[in-house]
Amino acid sequence: MRPEAVELIRAKRDGRRLAPGDIRALIAAYTQGEVPEEQMSALLMAVFFRGLDAEELSAWMGAMIESGERLDLSQVGRPTVDKHSTGGVGDKVSLVLAPLVAACGAAVPQLSGRGLGHTGGTLDKLETIPGLRTDLLPEEMLEVLTKVGCVICGAGAGLAPADRKLYALRDVTGTVESIPLIASSIMSKKIAEGTSALVLDVKVGSGAFMRELGEARRLAETMVGLGPAYGVKTTAVLTRMDVPLGRCVGNALEVAESVATLRGEGAADLLEVTLALAVEMLELAGVDADPVAALSSGAALGSYEAMVRAQGGDPSAPLPDAPHRETLPAPATGRLRRLDAFGVGLAAWRLGAGRAKKEDSVSPSAGVVCLAKPGDAVEKGQPLLELRAEDPARFAGAVEALEGAIEVGPQPAEPSPVVIEVIRS
Amino acid sequence: MRPEAVELIRAKRDGRRLAPGDIRALIAAYTQGEVPEEQMSALLMAVFFRGLDAEELSAWMGAMIESGERLDLSQVGRPTVDKHSTGGVGDKVSLVLAPLVAACGAAVPQLSGRGLGHTGGTLDKLETIPGLRTDLLPEEMLEVLTKVGCVICGAGAGLAPADRKLYALRDVTGTVESIPLIASSIMSKKIAEGTSALVLDVKVGSGAFMRELGEARRLAETMVGLGPAYGVKTTAVLTRMDVPLGRCVGNALEVAESVATLRGEGAADLLEVTLALAVEMLELAGVDADPVAALSSGAALGSYEAMVRAQGGDPSAPLPDAPHRETLPAPATGRLRRLDAFGVGLAAWRLGAGRAKKEDSVSPSAGVVCLAKPGDAVEKGQPLLELRAEDPARFAGAVEALEGAIEVGPQPAEPSPVVIEVIRS
Repeated sequence: MRPEAVELIRAKRDGRRLAPGDIRALIAAYTQGEVPEEQMSALLMAVFFRGLDAEELSAWMGAMIESGERLDLSQVGRPTVDKHSTGGVGDKVSLVLAPLVAACGAAVPQLSGRGLGHTGGTLDKLETIPGLRTDLLPEEMLEVLTKVGCVICGAGAGLAPADRKLYALRDVTGTVESIPLIASSIMSKKIAEGTSALVLDVKVGSGAFMRELGEARRLAETMVGLGPAYGVKTTAVLTRMDVPLGRCVGNALEVAESVATLRGEGAADLLEVTLALAVEMLELAGVDADPVAALSSGAALGSYEAMVRAQGGDPSAPLPDAPHRETLPAPATGRLRRLDAFGVGLAAWRLGAGRAKKEDSVSPSAGVVCLAKPGDAVEKGQPLLELRAEDPARFAGAVEALEGAIEVGPQPAEPSPVVIEVIRS
Repeated sequence: MRPEAVELIRAKRDGRRLAPGDIRALIAAYTQGEVPEEQMSALLMAVFFRGLDAEELSAWMGAMIESGERLDLSQVGRPTVDKHSTGGVGDKVSLVLAPLVAACGAAVPQLSGRGLGHTGGTLDKLETIPGLRTDLLPEEMLEVLTKVGCVICGAGAGLAPADRKLYALRDVTGTVESIPLIASSIMSKKIAEGTSALVLDVKVGSGAFMRELGEARRLAETMVGLGPAYGVKTTAVLTRMDVPLGRCVGNALEVAESVATLRGEGAADLLEVTLALAVEMLELAGVDADPVAALSSGAALGSYEAMVRAQGGDPSAPLPDAPHRETLPAPATGRLRRLDAFGVGLAAWRLGAGRAKKEDSVSPSAGVVCLAKPGDAVEKGQPLLELRAEDPARFAGAVEALEGAIEVGPQPAEPSPVVIEVIRS
């Protein structure tokens, strides 16, 4: 006989190990509505304080995967490899990386999410392309993936429904910030998606979910440890997120910057992260190809345009443009020492680029263009940031969000590498 | 603007202090059903781990009191003083103590609860008296209290409804065992009941809720600290609960033992605890009277019989008697060294004296009679315990519960005092 839910809560609360079978039965019962939300939220809080060991966590994640279907990508005919980012400001890497890796010969089945809070969501960005659909059925997704080699769309409700239910509960009960819960949530969705390999971009810094390196490293190691038991080769790359990635923050703005990057006009930091992730993805996929060549040959841009068309979009159509713009001037002459990712992300969010609640809609054209990046020489009064909005009433809040986010001094700050380290299983 | 519930959960989770006003607003909203159970259970678990400081706890308890009415006992015309026990095996103290203190000149407004688990409930015991009612309306309660000087009945639904709701939630979410939550639950009910003074019998040992002295002391100190702000003078007495109190465990059995005690035939340990509590109650009530005299004069017995009659009962009617009896013999010749309270309590519960779920009914006549107590000389084969049940099928489980509960050796164990210490505000 399985122990009752309250016994499992008390055991975890008191620091005792839960049996893998009990965890699986509990998550299954919760998904079926047989264990009430108040018991699960108490358990989640106990897990926040006590953690889950490797075996408990594997059972927890396994139960979430088994709560739904697991896609079979064997018919794609190429090695599959996906990438997941823990989220950052100006993080448009997926839009460049998926076509780039596809152009190299692997298949990238990217099931993405929407943005919540100060970091944007890939689907919100992609949907600014006129005509493009992200709500593909599983068979449509497979068709695009097989034909083009990459697809970026929403995950259907059939994948890891336990995670969906648990995530909504964690959101209202203050139990989001737990490494085992974050790791199992991310990994259950990616494993259910059917990819054979996965590269995780774990971001660290003021604009990231994880602000400290040690914490980010623990999350990365935890996730890398979870893939192999399900046949998913997993690597994590820790990358710096103290400054917005690239030059643009905002949905259509980031699509435009991604296309420019695919055309060879990318910002250095964005290129560095993208290529580092591409190298790891190709390595896991067992594909021997040079991503730099795929970029400069235009092959990656070709894959991007093919993907956009296959998803119903028009890659040559003009993107939405914001009717209102305002610039923020440099406060002094010297070197830009700091351009805080959280401040810029919050400003873009307040301009309309992000949502506060799941039901909110986002502005396609709102956002922030960084006209200078840390290290650049600036003159007092020179435009540093360009804010864009559909509604000019939003500028005041955005400017307020940027207070303290910008620092100009006589000397540039010590540059820190964007790619911090790679964690392999 | 008040912070949202999830912000308060996160704050407590991270060890930050909650503002008293926020706690009051949250508990009020929860009682009204405006904060869902899953948020409150996450907060309760965070409180389990992080605790509540004195100011937070006072606000928490205050909000529970304010969630309902507070009785006004000023018309009773005598100083009011109540007693609460954290629960023990064979703990029939209230049935002796309330009439004893009333006979000394104070008024004892005892609103009691039912038993759950291995410790019995005062109402379950009292209701074995033919005709006696414990579901008195507030005006009936006041009438009995004014006329007799004591009353023992159930608390109406109007007192501290927030506590009722919170207690039910704690029960299913593994958040019962938290000192601030226990303390505020007990004290909110007692303060709402309207008593001017309160003596707490905090039990420590194998048969008690608190098994360790340090923990019991913390609970006692926490409760003693909560009364004064609400004008309730509060004292706690720590008493030993490793052995059943007195000789009987079970509903009608304990009523019979209480009457015998009021007649001057009480067990030494039961008398010691009862008189220690009576002295503290009379001290707080400012009544100068000798409880020993009130016992030996028959005045306390008179108050008991008057209370039983005023509540509709017949003090001379025979009590229910169990049709089935079985004895447990002494395993060896020597001194009884141990008679474990938890084992005996569990046996009585399995015989039918207690309930597993709130909806269960209890057997009035089932229970255990201890024919010897630790320190007594026993001979191998001599009856040590008499088990009583309505259903003989229950004996096997009861005997199993007593395995390891009894120890006979050549020397008696070091006797430990029943009253450990008194904690005054």
